[in-house]
Amino acid sequence: MTEPLGSRPTEWAGKTYSEITDLAGRDGSILVVPVGSVEQHGHHLPVATDTILVDAVAHLGATRVVDDLPVLVTPPVWTGHSPHHRSLGGTLSLGHEDLLGALEGVAETALENGFDALLFCNGHGGNASLVSSVTGTVGVDHPDVEVLGVTYFHLASSFIDDLRESDVGGMAHAGEFETALMLHLRPELVDTDRMEAEELESEYSHGLHDMFDAGPLTVYREFREYSASGAIGAPELATAEQGERLFERLGDELELVLREAHERVR
Amino acid sequence: MTEPLGSRPTEWAGKTYSEITDLAGRDGSILVVPVGSVEQHGHHLPVATDTILVDAVAHLGATRVVDDLPVLVTPPVWTGHSPHHRSLGGTLSLGHEDLLGALEGVAETALENGFDALLFCNGHGGNASLVSSVTGTVGVDHPDVEVLGVTYFHLASSFIDDLRESDVGGMAHAGEFETALMLHLRPELVDTDRMEAEELESEYSHGLHDMFDAGPLTVYREFREYSASGAIGAPELATAEQGERLFERLGDELELVLREAHERVR
Amino acid sequence: MTEPLGSRPTEWAGKTYSEITDLAGRDGSILVVPVGSVEQHGHHLPVATDTILVDAVAHLGATRVVDDLPVLVTPPVWTGHSPHHRSLGGTLSLGHEDLLGALEGVAETALENGFDALLFCNGHGGNASLVSSVTGTVGVDHPDVEVLGVTYFHLASSFIDDLRESDVGGMAHAGEFETALMLHLRPELVDTDRMEAEELESEYSHGLHDMFDAGPLTVYREFREYSASGAIGAPELATAEQGERLFERLGDELELVLREAHERVR
Amino acid sequence: MTEPLGSRPTEWAGKTYSEITDLAGRDGSILVVPVGSVEQHGHHLPVATDTILVDAVAHLGATRVVDDLPVLVTPPVWTGHSPHHRSLGGTLSLGHEDLLGALEGVAETALENGFDALLFCNGHGGNASLVSSVTGTVGVDHPDVEVLGVTYFHLASSFIDDLRESDVGGMAHAGEFETALMLHLRPELVDTDRMEAEELESEYSHGLHDMFDAGPLTVYREFREYSASGAIGAPELATAEQGERLFERLGDELELVLREAHERVR
Amino acid sequence: MTEPLGSRPTEWAGKTYSEITDLAGRDGSILVVPVGSVEQHGHHLPVATDTILVDAVAHLGATRVVDDLPVLVTPPVWTGHSPHHRSLGGTLSLGHEDLLGALEGVAETALENGFDALLFCNGHGGNASLVSSVTGTVGVDHPDVEVLGVTYFHLASSFIDDLRESDVGGMAHAGEFETALMLHLRPELVDTDRMEAEELESEYSHGLHDMFDAGPLTVYREFREYSASGAIGAPELATAEQGERLFERLGDELELVLREAHERVR
Amino acid sequence: MTEPLGSRPTEWAGKTYSEITDLAGRDGSILVVPVGSVEQHGHHLPVATDTILVDAVAHLGATRVVDDLPVLVTPPVWTGHSPHHRSLGGTLSLGHEDLLGALEGVAETALENGFDALLFCNGHGGNASLVSSVTGTVGVDHPDVEVLGVTYFHLASSFIDDLRESDVGGMAHAGEFETALMLHLRPELVDTDRMEAEELESEYSHGLHDMFDAGPLTVYREFREYSASGAIGAPELATAEQGERLFERLGDELELVLREAHERVR
Repeated sequence: MTEPLGSRPTEWAGKTYSEITDLAGRDGSILVVPVGSVEQHGHHLPVATDTILVDAVAHLGATRVVDDLPVLVTPPVWTGHSPHHRSLGGTLSLGHEDLLGALEGVAETALENGFDALLFCNGHGGNASLVSSVTGTVGVDHPDVEVLGVTYFHLASSFIDDLRESDVGGMAHAGEFETALMLHLRPELVDTDRMEAEELESEYSHGLHDMFDAGPLTVYREFREYSASGAIGAPELATAEQGERLFERLGDELELVLREAHERVR
Repeated sequence: MTEPLGSRPTEWAGKTYSEITDLAGRDGSILVVPVGSVEQHGHHLPVATDTILVDAVAHLGATRVVDDLPVLVTPPVWTGHSPHHRSLGGTLSLGHEDLLGALEGVAETALENGFDALLFCNGHGGNASLVSSVTGTVGVDHPDVEVLGVTYFHLASSFIDDLRESDVGGMAHAGEFETALMLHLRPELVDTDRMEAEELESEYSHGLHDMFDAGPLTVYREFREYSASGAIGAPELATAEQGERLFERLGDELELVLREAHERVR
Repeated sequence: MTEPLGSRPTEWAGKTYSEITDLAGRDGSILVVPVGSVEQHGHHLPVATDTILVDAVAHLGATRVVDDLPVLVTPPVWTGHSPHHRSLGGTLSLGHEDLLGALEGVAETALENGFDALLFCNGHGGNASLVSSVTGTVGVDHPDVEVLGVTYFHLASSFIDDLRESDVGGMAHAGEFETALMLHLRPELVDTDRMEAEELESEYSHGLHDMFDAGPLTVYREFREYSASGAIGAPELATAEQGERLFERLGDELELVLREAHERVR
Repeated sequence: MTEPLGSRPTEWAGKTYSEITDLAGRDGSILVVPVGSVEQHGHHLPVATDTILVDAVAHLGATRVVDDLPVLVTPPVWTGHSPHHRSLGGTLSLGHEDLLGALEGVAETALENGFDALLFCNGHGGNASLVSSVTGTVGVDHPDVEVLGVTYFHLASSFIDDLRESDVGGMAHAGEFETALMLHLRPELVDTDRMEAEELESEYSHGLHDMFDAGPLTVYREFREYSASGAIGAPELATAEQGERLFERLGDELELVLREAHERVR
Repeated sequence: MTEPLGSRPTEWAGKTYSEITDLAGRDGSILVVPVGSVEQHGHHLPVATDTILVDAVAHLGATRVVDDLPVLVTPPVWTGHSPHHRSLGGTLSLGHEDLLGALEGVAETALENGFDALLFCNGHGGNASLVSSVTGTVGVDHPDVEVLGVTYFHLASSFIDDLRESDVGGMAHAGEFETALMLHLRPELVDTDRMEAEELESEYSHGLHDMFDAGPLTVYREFREYSASGAIGAPELATAEQGERLFERLGDELELVLREAHERVR
Repeated sequence: MTEPLGSRPTEWAGKTYSEITDLAGRDGSILVVPVGSVEQHGHHLPVATDTILVDAVAHLGATRVVDDLPVLVTPPVWTGHSPHHRSLGGTLSLGHEDLLGALEGVAETALENGFDALLFCNGHGGNASLVSSVTGTVGVDHPDVEVLGVTYFHLASSFIDDLRESDVGGMAHAGEFETALMLHLRPELVDTDRMEAEELESEYSHGLHDMFDAGPLTVYREFREYSASGAIGAPELATAEQGERLFERLGDELELVLREAHERVR
């Protein structure tokens, strides 16, 4: 969220209800629901990092296509699922069932307005499986709506090697990737003097080694066991310029998703 | 929300986790959780009106006391309970149980940081009884924390007669009160050309006659039955100057609540 | 409950099913669901006080109109929500969700009989916000039924100053108001030798000062913190004569609600 | 319920909280929770029949032992589970989960007072498996309390052949058994002019043939499929004298249960 | 389960979907859902005893009729409800609500294929009341389907006296009955060297005295309080020959249930 | 499941409770919970394919290590989540919340026996996000246990290109991969005469293209929209020999996971 709520032309929040129903009734209309979190992000990033980033990416994608197709973005659902971060502090987290219920409630009432497609756009690793699940639980109940879900940073898989400075392991929680995006979008919220981070220890060959090298094995662990600072990776390698390039490339990929969805439902 | 998320010094969102746990650990610390909604507000106000206003009032109150006592405000929970507005469109609403679960989840994890008091500050009529209820369900589980709840506009009861232009009935949904505050805080989001509103019909002597004359009888009704436009009251009497005076007086009352809570828990 | 279950002509309990469906099918039929509680009421009142009183008031109102319009009263739902009274003992209390579910279940099945209106009539402060909420959750599912809710003693606001002996603070839990009604209706259950009560301390200007001066601020607190005896206010000022006058005036107000509801739905 | 709520010395409802906690704290104290229902009972019995009977039986048993051991009876939970009776009308029924939650809530808060044993005493066939289940769900959470459940008319198995006039099939819903008890306890609520009833058709050798010949096979069926009147069996054979004898014998058996429970927990 | 999953011609598991929908669409089709458990069974029987037995009995019954009528058996739901066995170990148990949800989910989706009747066939005492309950909750939602429930060993009541060696008390948990069946069906899983068992103490005249003499009173108790070994009764009296006779007689009774159900729904 | 339940030495089902608690108490003990499904698998594979395969793979992995470390495998939870397959028939599916509850219940009671690690081993795509989620919900409640989750076929990513015959797209639902494994493990259940399958249409660049080329975008769609037969890919390319090689390689990878888990927790 880089602007006050309701300021951007792609925002549901700032419109009147008849503007929304008009847009939703247009052919091939798409709704984007950003899903973020508020959880510890080390000593250099604010706790709302995931919410700020996913909101910005969602609006970037929407802005790219808004002249061509009807699209709207709800306020970000910031009440994410982050039990593994609670022990470090600064974390506001719903239980799995409550977050699922919240997303279903938002979708259920939003779809009454007539959208043809709905994309949950997630910004927090701890929400990823849940957002995948809610795509199904909402989809079952709305066979006539195209229901999609994505964790936005997974869209960077194809190009990340071009833009990263760090080796595998450098892009993890509050690492090079998130820090770069925040330096570009909200530099005043980055404490560059406190860029502490630990390295990721991975005991499992099939486990997670990086945001972009996540093996098939899911391992539950309190974050405090991984990291004293709350950050993992190489935030110190991040730059605002890199953040800008990442952001624009993410916009490209999200634009592609939105255009392909529109093709299908229009 | 008059600023980008995380910009104000009283915001949880913009801080690092250790800043939050430090503040929460101070003597007599207070957390404010604004609870808003996204629902139709007639043709002249945006759907996020209640969220925008409650967030602004909560931060105003917090700002008044932040130099004297430790206080923090979470992002507004904008996923309110508004079933009666759904049929008009533009409404995103959780079921009763899901909103209760969301507020409990936010409170539960927030309180782990060590706050001595928690105030749910609600901005939407449809949430009012639920916010009163959640004060109890959270309070039961946290006997050592002072748990409070208020619907912010009820704090205006004592002074509203000094500031209103309309007779009883003029301050209802999207009426003079909310319009004045929005003209002061976010005038660019008010469509002054479309200030349509109906009058409130009340069939019940003990029913609601105005935001500030709500009788004991609760009547459930779809909003569409009351109002074609989605607004009720006298929005056309509202002015930005009046909005500013209302806003400051609300700040006075909320400041009083926060100071009295601090007295009790410090 | 001043009679054995099923004795009064306005009782659902004592009728056969076809008597009930006949009545429910008449034009403008109204069902009243009393909601009480079983919780400590100091040393001088029995734990079922709220259930006894709300049942009596509901039947008084119904009796006033039963010759003119079809009305029926279910047995009182006595399983209220009283977590704040548990520590003193004698309290049987459902969790918030369970009581909500119970009221919804009663309403759901009752409405299948064909009533045109449903009034939840509550007698316990701890249920008040929940009964307001259930009016909405039932109303949403029954757009063709007029769904109403009221906490009966709030109907006394307009006339209470004429009848009270105490100053503000005297009518609180097990205080002058409830004691007077019980002295009138069930004097054998009032232990006039043990009319102990504490004064209400209110730390908040916007908090509760009396049953009839309840500010906008909800404060959760275990009752034991307020009161050693379990009673607050001035029960010693109550008389049976006063109780009778209160009872009749409550009947007037409830009669008004029922007649206005009938007007609307017939 | 043959008396106004709170009139009998074995009633929780009519006592003050300290009387209850005193009794519960005595050695070998027992709480009885009657569970009834409100559902159609043919054209000759009132819908609250099961609640009236189970309440009366529970207090009879308790009265038999109250001089020797500490025992108390809560108000009857009348919100039973009767989905199969809904289509005939006059039925107020909770869903399975909601009734389970209600009984658990009552037990949970009641046991805080210090009882050594808890007996759910059920009076409605549709509740029987659920009351058996809740004995387990409450028992698991209270290993130090003796948790018991019984459907009271099953206690008559051993002696019913001595007292019945009808052959197998005559004692079914609103049949000879229930009619006899009601003629004894609440004759003014029995419409002896409308004693219509159908015979039970049982297609299954292992199915139900009578209240006292219930085979192992559970068959779900809407009551309307069995019976046009809502009653099955031979109500016309019932007499008040027979009802009195049944009642006293039921009292004997329940007394035995209470004394054996007391032996175990004292 | 005496064969690998999917091996028997009466198994849902081993068929393709079109084979299933073809069978379900035939006139008078019946689905059997076995419900077992995994819980301690003393030192001589495996923890899956109840699942193995109920699965075998269900297929025996189905095999008896499969040439005459369309019948299919799902895999056994082995996730039973056994809280009272947990403390001894080896027990996998769902909570009451979760098992209910699982059975409802299986039934709901199975019935979409077009079956005319559904029989829950239970093999575990701890599931018995729940299986009776689910018959109702599923039946309510499927008025056009014949929904039945049975705990298979209750079908042995009529003939057990012909086949038992032990007196009352010998056929209890992991006693003569279950041991005999396992010696017949899966002898390699019976440890005949460790046939330890305690006698059942019953403090209640109306309580349980044997699997085939279960009084009306339900008593919750941790199994460890009854039995050090985890077994009760007289397993040492069991023989494989007896097990075979029991098994065949159970098949007779289940066949009868299936044929009567088919008569009703075809 | 290639053997009758309880036949294999790595099975929980066939052991007595004390064998289980002994094993669980050993240093570095691991429990594996296979999670399968019963859903349509085209015209050539049985509906229990996923359950059969995941059970076999889990026991293969366990058998590889059972001489070196304490490991046990529960029966497969076959009640999976497959809403998208329901319309084709043959599908038994739990709702999301019910399956989550079932897995949590199994884990909760299993862990009481003293295991140091728990691996949910999933075999069905529709369960994948849910199994990832349950790893978290169980992990939060058991900080001292290593809680892991994996969808077994994802373990084949590293070697699949060596063993596949088909191009991308050939290994999808009931395609080359699953058919090969079934031809190896349960050839009698494969109908080689009916190997019909459609090609996967993917409208999304970021969507799924193959079991081993699943992009970041989740798309909900009823299976019937993809495929008339219920199968997608190239089952006709599968051979039993290939199935054997796949199976052994999967065993290698699962063995690695188990050994690494044991290293961590012993």
